[in-house]
Amino acid sequence: MAKKLWGGRFSTSTDADFEAFSRSIHYDAELAEYDVLHSVIHVRALRNAGLLSHTESKALLKALDALRRDIEAGAFRPDPREEDLHSAVQNLLREQVGDLALKLHTLRSRNDQIAFDIKLYCRKNALEMHEKLRMLSAAYGELAARYENTPFLGYTHTQRAQVIRFSDHCLAYAEMFGRDRKRLSDYREHVRPEIGAGALAGTSIPHASYAEAIRETDPENRLEITVSAAPLDHVSDRDAVIELLSICAILQTHISRFAEDMILYSTAEFDYLDLPEAFCTGSSLMPHKKNADLMELLRGSAGNVCGDLVSLLVTLKGLPLSYNRDMQLDKEPLFRTVKLVLAELDQLARFVPGIRLKEAVIAKALEDEHLYGVEIAEYLVHRDVPFKEAHDIVGGLIRYSETQHILIREIPDTELAAFHPALSQEKLRSIMTPEYVIDSRNN
Amino acid sequence: MAKKLWGGRFSTSTDADFEAFSRSIHYDAELAEYDVLHSVIHVRALRNAGLLSHTESKALLKALDALRRDIEAGAFRPDPREEDLHSAVQNLLREQVGDLALKLHTLRSRNDQIAFDIKLYCRKNALEMHEKLRMLSAAYGELAARYENTPFLGYTHTQRAQVIRFSDHCLAYAEMFGRDRKRLSDYREHVRPEIGAGALAGTSIPHASYAEAIRETDPENRLEITVSAAPLDHVSDRDAVIELLSICAILQTHISRFAEDMILYSTAEFDYLDLPEAFCTGSSLMPHKKNADLMELLRGSAGNVCGDLVSLLVTLKGLPLSYNRDMQLDKEPLFRTVKLVLAELDQLARFVPGIRLKEAVIAKALEDEHLYGVEIAEYLVHRDVPFKEAHDIVGGLIRYSETQHILIREIPDTELAAFHPALSQEKLRSIMTPEYVIDSRNN
Amino acid sequence: MAKKLWGGRFSTSTDADFEAFSRSIHYDAELAEYDVLHSVIHVRALRNAGLLSHTESKALLKALDALRRDIEAGAFRPDPREEDLHSAVQNLLREQVGDLALKLHTLRSRNDQIAFDIKLYCRKNALEMHEKLRMLSAAYGELAARYENTPFLGYTHTQRAQVIRFSDHCLAYAEMFGRDRKRLSDYREHVRPEIGAGALAGTSIPHASYAEAIRETDPENRLEITVSAAPLDHVSDRDAVIELLSICAILQTHISRFAEDMILYSTAEFDYLDLPEAFCTGSSLMPHKKNADLMELLRGSAGNVCGDLVSLLVTLKGLPLSYNRDMQLDKEPLFRTVKLVLAELDQLARFVPGIRLKEAVIAKALEDEHLYGVEIAEYLVHRDVPFKEAHDIVGGLIRYSETQHILIREIPDTELAAFHPALSQEKLRSIMTPEYVIDSRNN
Amino acid sequence: MAKKLWGGRFSTSTDADFEAFSRSIHYDAELAEYDVLHSVIHVRALRNAGLLSHTESKALLKALDALRRDIEAGAFRPDPREEDLHSAVQNLLREQVGDLALKLHTLRSRNDQIAFDIKLYCRKNALEMHEKLRMLSAAYGELAARYENTPFLGYTHTQRAQVIRFSDHCLAYAEMFGRDRKRLSDYREHVRPEIGAGALAGTSIPHASYAEAIRETDPENRLEITVSAAPLDHVSDRDAVIELLSICAILQTHISRFAEDMILYSTAEFDYLDLPEAFCTGSSLMPHKKNADLMELLRGSAGNVCGDLVSLLVTLKGLPLSYNRDMQLDKEPLFRTVKLVLAELDQLARFVPGIRLKEAVIAKALEDEHLYGVEIAEYLVHRDVPFKEAHDIVGGLIRYSETQHILIREIPDTELAAFHPALSQEKLRSIMTPEYVIDSRNN
Repeated sequence: MAKKLWGGRFSTSTDADFEAFSRSIHYDAELAEYDVLHSVIHVRALRNAGLLSHTESKALLKALDALRRDIEAGAFRPDPREEDLHSAVQNLLREQVGDLALKLHTLRSRNDQIAFDIKLYCRKNALEMHEKLRMLSAAYGELAARYENTPFLGYTHTQRAQVIRFSDHCLAYAEMFGRDRKRLSDYREHVRPEIGAGALAGTSIPHASYAEAIRETDPENRLEITVSAAPLDHVSDRDAVIELLSICAILQTHISRFAEDMILYSTAEFDYLDLPEAFCTGSSLMPHKKNADLMELLRGSAGNVCGDLVSLLVTLKGLPLSYNRDMQLDKEPLFRTVKLVLAELDQLARFVPGIRLKEAVIAKALEDEHLYGVEIAEYLVHRDVPFKEAHDIVGGLIRYSETQHILIREIPDTELAAFHPALSQEKLRSIMTPEYVIDSRNN
Repeated sequence: MAKKLWGGRFSTSTDADFEAFSRSIHYDAELAEYDVLHSVIHVRALRNAGLLSHTESKALLKALDALRRDIEAGAFRPDPREEDLHSAVQNLLREQVGDLALKLHTLRSRNDQIAFDIKLYCRKNALEMHEKLRMLSAAYGELAARYENTPFLGYTHTQRAQVIRFSDHCLAYAEMFGRDRKRLSDYREHVRPEIGAGALAGTSIPHASYAEAIRETDPENRLEITVSAAPLDHVSDRDAVIELLSICAILQTHISRFAEDMILYSTAEFDYLDLPEAFCTGSSLMPHKKNADLMELLRGSAGNVCGDLVSLLVTLKGLPLSYNRDMQLDKEPLFRTVKLVLAELDQLARFVPGIRLKEAVIAKALEDEHLYGVEIAEYLVHRDVPFKEAHDIVGGLIRYSETQHILIREIPDTELAAFHPALSQEKLRSIMTPEYVIDSRNN
Repeated sequence: MAKKLWGGRFSTSTDADFEAFSRSIHYDAELAEYDVLHSVIHVRALRNAGLLSHTESKALLKALDALRRDIEAGAFRPDPREEDLHSAVQNLLREQVGDLALKLHTLRSRNDQIAFDIKLYCRKNALEMHEKLRMLSAAYGELAARYENTPFLGYTHTQRAQVIRFSDHCLAYAEMFGRDRKRLSDYREHVRPEIGAGALAGTSIPHASYAEAIRETDPENRLEITVSAAPLDHVSDRDAVIELLSICAILQTHISRFAEDMILYSTAEFDYLDLPEAFCTGSSLMPHKKNADLMELLRGSAGNVCGDLVSLLVTLKGLPLSYNRDMQLDKEPLFRTVKLVLAELDQLARFVPGIRLKEAVIAKALEDEHLYGVEIAEYLVHRDVPFKEAHDIVGGLIRYSETQHILIREIPDTELAAFHPALSQEKLRSIMTPEYVIDSRNN
Repeated sequence: MAKKLWGGRFSTSTDADFEAFSRSIHYDAELAEYDVLHSVIHVRALRNAGLLSHTESKALLKALDALRRDIEAGAFRPDPREEDLHSAVQNLLREQVGDLALKLHTLRSRNDQIAFDIKLYCRKNALEMHEKLRMLSAAYGELAARYENTPFLGYTHTQRAQVIRFSDHCLAYAEMFGRDRKRLSDYREHVRPEIGAGALAGTSIPHASYAEAIRETDPENRLEITVSAAPLDHVSDRDAVIELLSICAILQTHISRFAEDMILYSTAEFDYLDLPEAFCTGSSLMPHKKNADLMELLRGSAGNVCGDLVSLLVTLKGLPLSYNRDMQLDKEPLFRTVKLVLAELDQLARFVPGIRLKEAVIAKALEDEHLYGVEIAEYLVHRDVPFKEAHDIVGGLIRYSETQHILIREIPDTELAAFHPALSQEKLRSIMTPEYVIDSRNN
């Protein structure tokens, strides 16, 4: 096993521990389907260029197709002692077609392969995220529909602010995830998988041979593969990885904020909603606990994604052109974050429908008179009180209510009039209801 | 001065040190032009909604226009003791129009203003970066044209790899900056400035009043301002900031790589080019030094931009909806990075044209026989030698050359034939030239 | 002005925009006192080495002392067009002593100066943080003492967990800040300011001349300055900066957690405490708001400090020895974080004493029976029930209470016995009190 | 399997995908030895407190000891469907001692266990890093000794600066790693493993029972375990993790700088040294390549470590007391970085001795006259030329040499005298040698 793709000029054998340290097969196997695709196109290009006979290319393509099916079936088991995926694929092919496999790497470089593989991986997974976000948005939409007319408390500074509808809350998250989707769909246009860059400088295989091979392999051009026009850039470029991680970091920020809202709202103190028990856990010591574990893990995962993004930015900083081995370190952070985010989106899409509002508790909380300060001020403004003055009047009213330990709803009309003649219990009571508030909003 | 926009309900005055600690006027003044624009639209919306008379709105708009002109002329000098920009603007207006200024804030929240301001800031500066990148690409294009046919050494692993053209090197950076431009132009569509969100929940001012005010203010809809449809999201949202910082982080990675290349190539050891002296400095101790300071600062600035991006991601993590005061901390990192990147692009656009290749030194380096290994192998492949075997033959040739201390160019034909019959001095000498290599590339 | 310390070999003048871009005087002026100290030692070393006469050194020392007094008095006003602090100091001296000032830089490098300056800055500010943390711990101690016997609710997963004392909560933060202090005091031993490294290689000034100059300047060795024994390391080293930022990042994490606790506990829903109004603000739209702004800013500042730490780590990554201009970028992040943290500690030390518990609200919340689950289980364990079984019994009791909508305190003895014979109302009521819980704890 | 440690109050079963998502057994198994140790102490404490009989405790301790031996022998194979390590251990014990295993968790919380485990893990691995750094320093020491008197080129700004000794270069790295060791040894004092915190509030087990159990288990107090005095802090605290990651981040910065030096010095252009071939690799396309792969991976790994540190800082930011599930996410970044750094130190300790200087190449490079500029200026200073003037004279000399295309060594005495009368070929030739330079340095 582990026949290397290089080594003619070396007289010393590689240090065994270094081999283990530098090996990537345990993670880059993730890219097998794309690597086989690269080989398929490359074999066809070699054949088109007259560097492989039709018989040879046929045999190689057949073996590659068998390998592709293995990968799809989850039956791809590379030898863990292989240096990397590219060596593993070639050595597996050799078991099928013998020394013909050695021709596979003709005028090809792993630099070209890995850049191709990783770009296709990024595109495919961006698409998958996009689809999962669509489903998540639908889940928010259904939740919003279920509680369409349920008034709710809106917060600023984590302090009660104004009455909103619960559907506004859902809508806010749907908006955020909508922006994430927009970013992901634009992202796909930023990532163009290329082939034919050689190690850094292109090769003597004609562009036309590659172009024809691409057409034969992906006739509808769904993968938007092109022949490398700027090979030096292609093998140096990891923009696709950093940009996807950036998009994930923003998305993850949204997730963490939603998680925080859920954690808050499900405390005994807020108590606005019941979270689906299937996503909560208990305590090994405290028998009563029901903890919002999924939400905590989603909140905390902001650390992982931000860390992975930073990891790439640091590694790429200041690398001279073109390929440097440091760039091998892009894969683990990328794979980690992609898998994490996909799993989070799955979890969320099943968690969200399980949210149940505790409407009685919310109704009670909506009695808090503070929530209606803006509406009282608005009412005064429409009676020609300058806003700043109206703001002061309501502020005074609240202070009076607090220091006198009396509800605003209970202040006699005579006293109310001292604040402003337009104020009366009848008026205030009609204003200080969720229904009034929601009706009054701009639309 | 420093009349606050709030405070009716407070009995204690604010701690003076806390006031200084939490003040933002020393940096958010940067947003003055956008904040005045918000006020202009808001005044018109209030007038449309019947909450300001025509006389009032006219007086306010006139005063706002005077302020706008001051800002444009660089004559905006807010009192440094103001709490923030929004208070500063209102207090300045008060000097012009008296208590009428107090009506400016009718049914408006600073949460809405700052989200509006920052999104417009981001859009405008993204556009400016886009334009500067265009000029930088042009500079690379001119440099590439000047040295169009100059062969150069391509590197992988910071080790000599293959012959390229110097224009390939320029092209690689032009490609990178081209991707940055694409990201910036897509970015603009992601950022939609909104108005009318109130503190978090909209207000009683009709959408139509705002819509009309927007049309009046920006008839051609160049700023793409809309009436807030999801106010809870609008005041909570800082995606525009994080995304712009992400784009800058990738762009800055490109800059840092170019800087590293320049530093390397201008060492006494590489010596491939002369950097423009106007961007270098000397040493206070060592009289001979000419250091590539600009390049070092550009390389190191990757730290600043990455740090600013991280700063935002950390601050936003886990914030419950909607606005929280933490979000005030978005501005300094954003402004720092935007100014830094704009300045870097300016510097680069003037630095790049000053690069001078030392063609004699490069020509000498191109004699290195190692650079032609791929081409010799390619030649053998075209003579039906399987690539893996060709690779081994060339590896052996190089090892022989090194252990025998003899140039490949000097190995007698008889010995060459022992490596492969198709090898001869005549053939090898024709292959081992930059011209041969460049001609052989796929195209 | 702006006479440079270098330039003999340059034929082109420096680009004006580059000069502005690379200038550091607007921030490194912060280091003036240390830079003057370096000059004082250096002048004495030169005199000791016979490179300055006694008259010359006396004149220079006198001028330096005047400058030092200006700096102390806040009257140091370097020309903003200076390249950096070192040039500024020399040019100011020149105004005092004429061309003799040119001898100040004899066999000295700015690389040595800046490494010296920054290490002293770090040490001094670490000491100041240490002292402020001491005062903050005292504030927590006083708060703990004021509420020494006040029971409180302890949380895990932001869900009610068990009864604690409020002083336990204070103690937890005192412990954290205690660890921060320990780190800061160890830190001082890690930072050894050195002098005499030249640009990177030492100079011909004898060690003994420097050693004598250090003794003369700091007879009690309070600053622990030494003659550079490994100059190449000294000028390359920014460990002191990164380590201080790391310590600040941990400290800031503690601050952010305390801030979150305060924000939570002061919501209308928790309502456990009143925060000092002098550190809160209101809303420009909502008259009732009292927001915990200081706490939000302290929570959000975790972003700034983490960003500054990352900034340094990125900038330093992969820099070859020894000094590189990239390292100039260490100062702004360092100064920002140091000033921020010092200000935060000041704010906190004045905020903490203003916290007031709402004991009635807390007492009401302590009636929540869930808080006593562990104690009931403990009671059963002491009656020989295996813990796992006791845990299940209490879990069942809670479920029964919830599904039957009955308080545990109200379940009849006969039904209790069905859970376990040792359970009775009398027993449960004695257990389910804060006093019982606190008495039962290990000590 | 997978019997959970909680669940009495739950009516819905856990979502299967959530179970997989939240499971930690695949990584926290790493902590098995510490978790068993916690159990050993806990069993003894329970026995001391009369909550377990001697027979029971004996049986449990025997089973725990068997488990400990399995772990040491690498034979610990927990069921991958277990929720976490703590459940896995209990379920494995159950296979040995039956339901007695259920008593193991009496009055214990996983919050206490995991904080204990992770602190011991950190301590132990810090010690191991410390030891490996000692060996690495020894390797640098040997390398320095081998080339003790070999002059070398010192760089600033990656440009040739002055002559140094190669041993100075080794010494600089030895200094850096020495500081890392100092930090690690101080670190150990910062980390105090505690036990007995319960979930957050302590338990009814007396302190004395724990204290006695600790003495029995670790009679010499080598692990410095104490009974938790501030339990709320203990279960909330992850300082040990962040601080260790910070120390690793600084250490990794040093490694990345060394790696960069090695990459530079082994290019064809610098060519100062041969790196051990056993740590290099070749190219699949270019037969001549010998790439410094280990060095590139070490340089790039700065990204991983910085990312892991950031990950923790983000996750911990703003978490309210005490334990939150987010904190589970501390382990993967910690384990990754610890293993990476340990492996890097191993690799380095074997790589460093294989470095071979190419002394002839270095000797040639040392002929570069620019390297001696400071020494010429020093010579003039000792002839009473003010340094600034000497600096200008040498700058002029260099410019003259460059514009006249003549070596300084070749400028006739008459022309030299025009620069300064003290200059002569004889003098300059004696100065411009590595030996002169090294002799002249301060010591």
